[in-house]
Amino acid sequence: MTSRTSFMLAASLGLLLSQACFAAGSSPDDFSGRWEVTTQYSGGEYVSGLNLTSAPDGYTGRSGYLVPDGYFYHYTGTVKDGSLHLRILAPDGKTSIGNLAAVLDHGILSGQGTLYEVPITFKGHRPLQRPANAPRVHDFVPRIYYRTFSGANPPALHIFPGDTVRTQTVDADGGGPHGNITLVGNGQTGPFYIEGAMLGDTIAVHFIRIRPNRDTAFEYRAGLNPNVVPAGYPQHRTDGWSDSWNLDRKHGTATPAQPSEALRNFTVKLQPMLGTVAIAPFADQAISTSDLGRFGGNLDYNQIREGTTLYLPVYQAGALLTMGDGHAQQGDGEITGQGFETSMDVEFSVDLIKDQLLDQPWAENDQYVMVSGVGGSLEEALKNATAGLSNWLRAYYRLDASEIATVLAPSIHYDIAEVTDPEVHIVAKIDKSVLAQLPKPAAPTRVFCQSPRGCDFE
Amino acid sequence: MTSRTSFMLAASLGLLLSQACFAAGSSPDDFSGRWEVTTQYSGGEYVSGLNLTSAPDGYTGRSGYLVPDGYFYHYTGTVKDGSLHLRILAPDGKTSIGNLAAVLDHGILSGQGTLYEVPITFKGHRPLQRPANAPRVHDFVPRIYYRTFSGANPPALHIFPGDTVRTQTVDADGGGPHGNITLVGNGQTGPFYIEGAMLGDTIAVHFIRIRPNRDTAFEYRAGLNPNVVPAGYPQHRTDGWSDSWNLDRKHGTATPAQPSEALRNFTVKLQPMLGTVAIAPFADQAISTSDLGRFGGNLDYNQIREGTTLYLPVYQAGALLTMGDGHAQQGDGEITGQGFETSMDVEFSVDLIKDQLLDQPWAENDQYVMVSGVGGSLEEALKNATAGLSNWLRAYYRLDASEIATVLAPSIHYDIAEVTDPEVHIVAKIDKSVLAQLPKPAAPTRVFCQSPRGCDFE
Amino acid sequence: MTSRTSFMLAASLGLLLSQACFAAGSSPDDFSGRWEVTTQYSGGEYVSGLNLTSAPDGYTGRSGYLVPDGYFYHYTGTVKDGSLHLRILAPDGKTSIGNLAAVLDHGILSGQGTLYEVPITFKGHRPLQRPANAPRVHDFVPRIYYRTFSGANPPALHIFPGDTVRTQTVDADGGGPHGNITLVGNGQTGPFYIEGAMLGDTIAVHFIRIRPNRDTAFEYRAGLNPNVVPAGYPQHRTDGWSDSWNLDRKHGTATPAQPSEALRNFTVKLQPMLGTVAIAPFADQAISTSDLGRFGGNLDYNQIREGTTLYLPVYQAGALLTMGDGHAQQGDGEITGQGFETSMDVEFSVDLIKDQLLDQPWAENDQYVMVSGVGGSLEEALKNATAGLSNWLRAYYRLDASEIATVLAPSIHYDIAEVTDPEVHIVAKIDKSVLAQLPKPAAPTRVFCQSPRGCDFE
Amino acid sequence: MTSRTSFMLAASLGLLLSQACFAAGSSPDDFSGRWEVTTQYSGGEYVSGLNLTSAPDGYTGRSGYLVPDGYFYHYTGTVKDGSLHLRILAPDGKTSIGNLAAVLDHGILSGQGTLYEVPITFKGHRPLQRPANAPRVHDFVPRIYYRTFSGANPPALHIFPGDTVRTQTVDADGGGPHGNITLVGNGQTGPFYIEGAMLGDTIAVHFIRIRPNRDTAFEYRAGLNPNVVPAGYPQHRTDGWSDSWNLDRKHGTATPAQPSEALRNFTVKLQPMLGTVAIAPFADQAISTSDLGRFGGNLDYNQIREGTTLYLPVYQAGALLTMGDGHAQQGDGEITGQGFETSMDVEFSVDLIKDQLLDQPWAENDQYVMVSGVGGSLEEALKNATAGLSNWLRAYYRLDASEIATVLAPSIHYDIAEVTDPEVHIVAKIDKSVLAQLPKPAAPTRVFCQSPRGCDFE
Repeated sequence: MTSRTSFMLAASLGLLLSQACFAAGSSPDDFSGRWEVTTQYSGGEYVSGLNLTSAPDGYTGRSGYLVPDGYFYHYTGTVKDGSLHLRILAPDGKTSIGNLAAVLDHGILSGQGTLYEVPITFKGHRPLQRPANAPRVHDFVPRIYYRTFSGANPPALHIFPGDTVRTQTVDADGGGPHGNITLVGNGQTGPFYIEGAMLGDTIAVHFIRIRPNRDTAFEYRAGLNPNVVPAGYPQHRTDGWSDSWNLDRKHGTATPAQPSEALRNFTVKLQPMLGTVAIAPFADQAISTSDLGRFGGNLDYNQIREGTTLYLPVYQAGALLTMGDGHAQQGDGEITGQGFETSMDVEFSVDLIKDQLLDQPWAENDQYVMVSGVGGSLEEALKNATAGLSNWLRAYYRLDASEIATVLAPSIHYDIAEVTDPEVHIVAKIDKSVLAQLPKPAAPTRVFCQSPRGCDFE
Repeated sequence: MTSRTSFMLAASLGLLLSQACFAAGSSPDDFSGRWEVTTQYSGGEYVSGLNLTSAPDGYTGRSGYLVPDGYFYHYTGTVKDGSLHLRILAPDGKTSIGNLAAVLDHGILSGQGTLYEVPITFKGHRPLQRPANAPRVHDFVPRIYYRTFSGANPPALHIFPGDTVRTQTVDADGGGPHGNITLVGNGQTGPFYIEGAMLGDTIAVHFIRIRPNRDTAFEYRAGLNPNVVPAGYPQHRTDGWSDSWNLDRKHGTATPAQPSEALRNFTVKLQPMLGTVAIAPFADQAISTSDLGRFGGNLDYNQIREGTTLYLPVYQAGALLTMGDGHAQQGDGEITGQGFETSMDVEFSVDLIKDQLLDQPWAENDQYVMVSGVGGSLEEALKNATAGLSNWLRAYYRLDASEIATVLAPSIHYDIAEVTDPEVHIVAKIDKSVLAQLPKPAAPTRVFCQSPRGCDFE
Repeated sequence: MTSRTSFMLAASLGLLLSQACFAAGSSPDDFSGRWEVTTQYSGGEYVSGLNLTSAPDGYTGRSGYLVPDGYFYHYTGTVKDGSLHLRILAPDGKTSIGNLAAVLDHGILSGQGTLYEVPITFKGHRPLQRPANAPRVHDFVPRIYYRTFSGANPPALHIFPGDTVRTQTVDADGGGPHGNITLVGNGQTGPFYIEGAMLGDTIAVHFIRIRPNRDTAFEYRAGLNPNVVPAGYPQHRTDGWSDSWNLDRKHGTATPAQPSEALRNFTVKLQPMLGTVAIAPFADQAISTSDLGRFGGNLDYNQIREGTTLYLPVYQAGALLTMGDGHAQQGDGEITGQGFETSMDVEFSVDLIKDQLLDQPWAENDQYVMVSGVGGSLEEALKNATAGLSNWLRAYYRLDASEIATVLAPSIHYDIAEVTDPEVHIVAKIDKSVLAQLPKPAAPTRVFCQSPRGCDFE
Repeated sequence: MTSRTSFMLAASLGLLLSQACFAAGSSPDDFSGRWEVTTQYSGGEYVSGLNLTSAPDGYTGRSGYLVPDGYFYHYTGTVKDGSLHLRILAPDGKTSIGNLAAVLDHGILSGQGTLYEVPITFKGHRPLQRPANAPRVHDFVPRIYYRTFSGANPPALHIFPGDTVRTQTVDADGGGPHGNITLVGNGQTGPFYIEGAMLGDTIAVHFIRIRPNRDTAFEYRAGLNPNVVPAGYPQHRTDGWSDSWNLDRKHGTATPAQPSEALRNFTVKLQPMLGTVAIAPFADQAISTSDLGRFGGNLDYNQIREGTTLYLPVYQAGALLTMGDGHAQQGDGEITGQGFETSMDVEFSVDLIKDQLLDQPWAENDQYVMVSGVGGSLEEALKNATAGLSNWLRAYYRLDASEIATVLAPSIHYDIAEVTDPEVHIVAKIDKSVLAQLPKPAAPTRVFCQSPRGCDFE
């Protein structure tokens, strides 16, 4: 399968060259600095970042994976007759697993080699520089909605870190602001290609505005989902029941469209959120937009609201951010399988954190830092959430395992975000007033968590 | 195994007769009204309540189990030659499963019969009436601490509904207010026998005061419990680490006794709670005080605090309430396996709700109604919590399944109380401001949940 | 994203027209009978079967999904002025969810309409007829190996039901018969397009030969996978350990390449199997070949051997069968995370069962019928396996729920196939000698299980 | 709560003295050798073994717990003025946790001391020696059946290792051989007190005969248990259904009492087993006979049959073996919640293995060694089973972690014993032909697994 990512990147380069230029290295012949490299490998194309540093006897470096095996690579290299000869080292920094020979011509780094025993060719360029008129505000009207999270979905808009996007999302059944259905399924707006975002980086998505753009929502409310009640719990729907809710956008409330007598005064305060925010998952995968994972996706967490910043790992060049599945309100667990599903006006800005990968979503708002654990069971989700918050503390505050236990034991809170999607989602969070008691490290620690060994901290 | 409960009850009756008298029925020969019945069955003794009602052709009635099979029984009876002949009906109210013949002599109801095919004899009396000087305040100094929850542990104090008790608890290692160890293990204060509490009832324990009575606590904080982190998470203890905390009772804070440099300003606000509150479990069981279940026990929920009222089902005559395992503070999940373990001064009052059994613990404070789900996995605990809150809404507000889904979906919150004990504990809770939108029923609905079919509502 | 399936189908049609012809309906203008229809919908193409039947006032029909929403559709239609006007009905057979207008011209059925409110266009033809020289034996040498299960991977070979294929698979690290690495990852041979296979059908893959084609295998054996042992179980690798095994293909045994003294006589009997067999999953998904699900995939079940027939549901036109990940031997659970990984010579034949979809893999050999349950936890996998075997009994023997319980309770066996992949896999199986006691129904029952309601039986 | 165990032991001593005598040490004043010690502690009595060894400067020793804290203790001691002064060491063999002073008078070792800070007194004697007429065959007719596993249930029969017992068990509803109900619940035959069995030992129960002693059995078969099928699986009982089975004891088969037409030829081969075999659990616990755990209990494993030897850990003096809950046949998982429940004639012999504690049940028959994993979820049960078999291999074959992985990965089989009791039960087993390839160690390794650290091997 051929990834379209690199093709779309090439096309977009033409559009962007008038307003952007490649970042230059220190001299024309200098290999050092950042590169964005497209590798041809076994019928596929994979784009990753490569960062080379001058060393006494040549270069050292690191890149995201060149081929989809889930690892980061290290490099040592020497220049001979104008060619850069790189040895590819495994994540341990020691084991040699391949080699590359590269030449630099008019800003294009190209070459070939082998990884394990498989031949690869590659071509790279300097990262695009942010244009002069940045940051910009983009008004983006989606024409296509996607039902997969995938690197094969072509970018709909290229943006630079710092830019803001104003756009819309459809509801989980594809319904738009005028009740019009746009497709069948949980359609996503995007993908947004964030310039400079490469595997191993993190993007920050700050939600400025998430508001329903119509006056109705629907939510299955005839009974509770089998995932939240024991076998035998009564599930029969009351006759004549309606799943519709009326939204009073002015006062920020929702009421059942056809309330029973007992619920005639039942009113819910709106707390609009996006159920689904994702970047494209690793390698060739295309994952249903009903699913969730380390790439984000159908997280259905009621704190993904206005004012929240969501951090997502980058697995594909440009990150390929998508979003949708707005809920005007949702309780813990999404216990009927739905929130108040509706279409939304959304405004967000994006930033890029180079060379930091927690390998799972995390978020912050005024009060909390929140780390998402996704898993096949509540146990697995809880473990991923706790370890994620622990790794976050280690990366940002350089605490050791005992200090982390000391801080988290009295302070940790868990939110059960949702338990009715294909994977379940638990969030581990900590109050920022607790963090304020800790000494802030002078510079943030680099963290890479994707290795099977767990996280590397520098 | 012979239960000592009834024996102790008999002994205590002597003590209490000077200040209490049996509640009389409407006439000397009248069988109608409440009885407390001790059944002899297959070498064991079991005490339960029996409530008979005059009917056109005799009596109808209901009792808790007479023998430990987990069911409630119904009765129909006629009087012939002064003897009451009762047919015992299964929980379905139809199937005949046994019979009893009883006579009434000087206020003592006695007789014999068979249940299924097994012979039983029984003897009963009217419930004790609350003495004239009630409610009372008892100052109780424990001399023995128990390591099991069991109907075989003799009552340490008999109290009436409405009474208040001031007492102390030791820490989870048996440590007292002066650092003195009293026994090895999670010793419990009590049991307190609540007069009139019979199987099928609920007791309400209102915590007036829970305060550390010494200046130290301990909490394992070298690393996180394996239940909350994935395999491979680093567990090594920092050298020279201390699990001790200093409690500043005046200012209500805790600080690590030997903080590392990074934690030199780390201070935790005290929120004293009891980790363990229980009634005696069903039948002949004696369950370790490290365990938890429908009987309560080692719930380790940080909302069992001053101002909270905890409701527990009654499985044994007198309920046999016990408590201990004070934590000066504890976060969600008890993620290192301990809270800030310390000894406590405790003051609580008790009330009795006849003929209402949710069959699982629930609690309320100013803001929330909270229902405890205990299970072998987080999934099972979550299901038990959600179904419990749903049953609670049905009992108190007479909502049907679809109305319950409508109310809970946007409103439910989950707390992960603890995940490191033999069973895990999740709480489903709802804000009282949501309940305020519902019409309050004129009279509470009776609810019995112990039948294998689920809950019966009347 | 544009599926390539239909494109490849079109291309292959050209190749196949010399040896195949379309199956004709009863008359040139007759809409009745089977069609293979390509739908254009929201930027994607989806191929499904459509089966129309003459009815007194027009036609009735059924199809697999036209767009990826997971449902089957029913139809009622009338012909007016040569055009077929179809009403699309939801799976309940009652609710109208769209309409289509079609014309028939030179054997091509084409038209347009709306589903829900979204426009679709479509073009269809009769299924290909098996050519005169069928069944054939194909010798297929793979040139590309795939790391995803996806309808976007182009078919490598088109075959008809009844055909046999002789081919090779690489090991889970991409290693071939000469130790040559072909790609990084669990590369799959195929996809094989089975003519006539449409969503809602089942394919049967009969394995005639599965044999290692080299003299070595590797298996992680330094310690047990964290999924099969409690936290704290010792995991340290013995120094100088090797994961290599020598295969004695003549005698059918394996021995550790560098045995310790205690294992100097340790010999394992080979039982070659394929760890990974799949069809392309539903809709636009591309799922990693390390994963498994209703589409099969990395099942890692040691009974997928020579002599076993594996039945897989069809979600994409042609099924798109792939296979790989040979294990020379593997115990229950794949408890070190690997079997004896090696490359294989494989020979298999394929059959097609129209209009039967169990929606999960099942298999049979001389002794057992075996149904695969895949899930995020062992509980979920066990439930899916048991329900699958129950549904299988209902479909093939028309037993009701109580009869199924009677037969299964004393007869069911479970195999824990694997617990170390992203999802776990449990198999529920029954001995054929038990089935021999049941009356065989005259004709098999149609079963469709993909609806959210569960299985429909006809 | 006062344990009756020691009281009953004292009573039985009187009965046994005519046929047994205490084993003597090497000289009248010698403390060395084995002792059986009764400790008075905090209102309870606990009996444990104490083994002292002469050392150059006094004694060293080891005991099971003296008080119920789950640990084994080590000792170092010196004799001064005829008194033995022992320092009690924690399981690490280093940390001093208490002290004892003992005197020896006419074969009675007695004294007092403190453990942690709590006072204890103790009195001990030499183990009983097997009488001259041993081994014996006991015909035991039970008069009382127990509904708890508990050290508080008085021994019904004292036997010596090597003895054989012939007895009967009632069915899971208390039904006897003549259909007579004896009590309500899963009544257990016993307890059998095995002389010399102390905490830290293992008993071996060899089942010579397990046969139904009546012609009927019952098994819920209207539908499958909710634990084995997903929510929504149809559960409705066929009208007029019967749970009765007819047993043909001569031909060893069972048939439904009222078969439907489809099941008119359905016949099941009997494979009689005991669902429940247990020793008394740790300390003061009394656990319902529907439950299971490290003490055995309601294991419901269909390989506990004639010819199988079941090994159980010892937690109470005398082990207090009980058994019941016969199943004429049961498939994997006990998927309707019951086997073919019936009363049994049982014949078994018992042996004692001193100082070996795997801390979980394991069994062997002609073909397999089988280790029981019990847990709150299938995951936990699987982990306990795998680690148990691994520990078993380490104890008996002295393999290291990598060798164990090498042996188990291709050889392990799992049985899902039952999933419908309060805890679930998975068995990990290995074929004895695999073990035959390993070098047998010269002498068995001592293993103690109860420490929180895991197993200690010597």
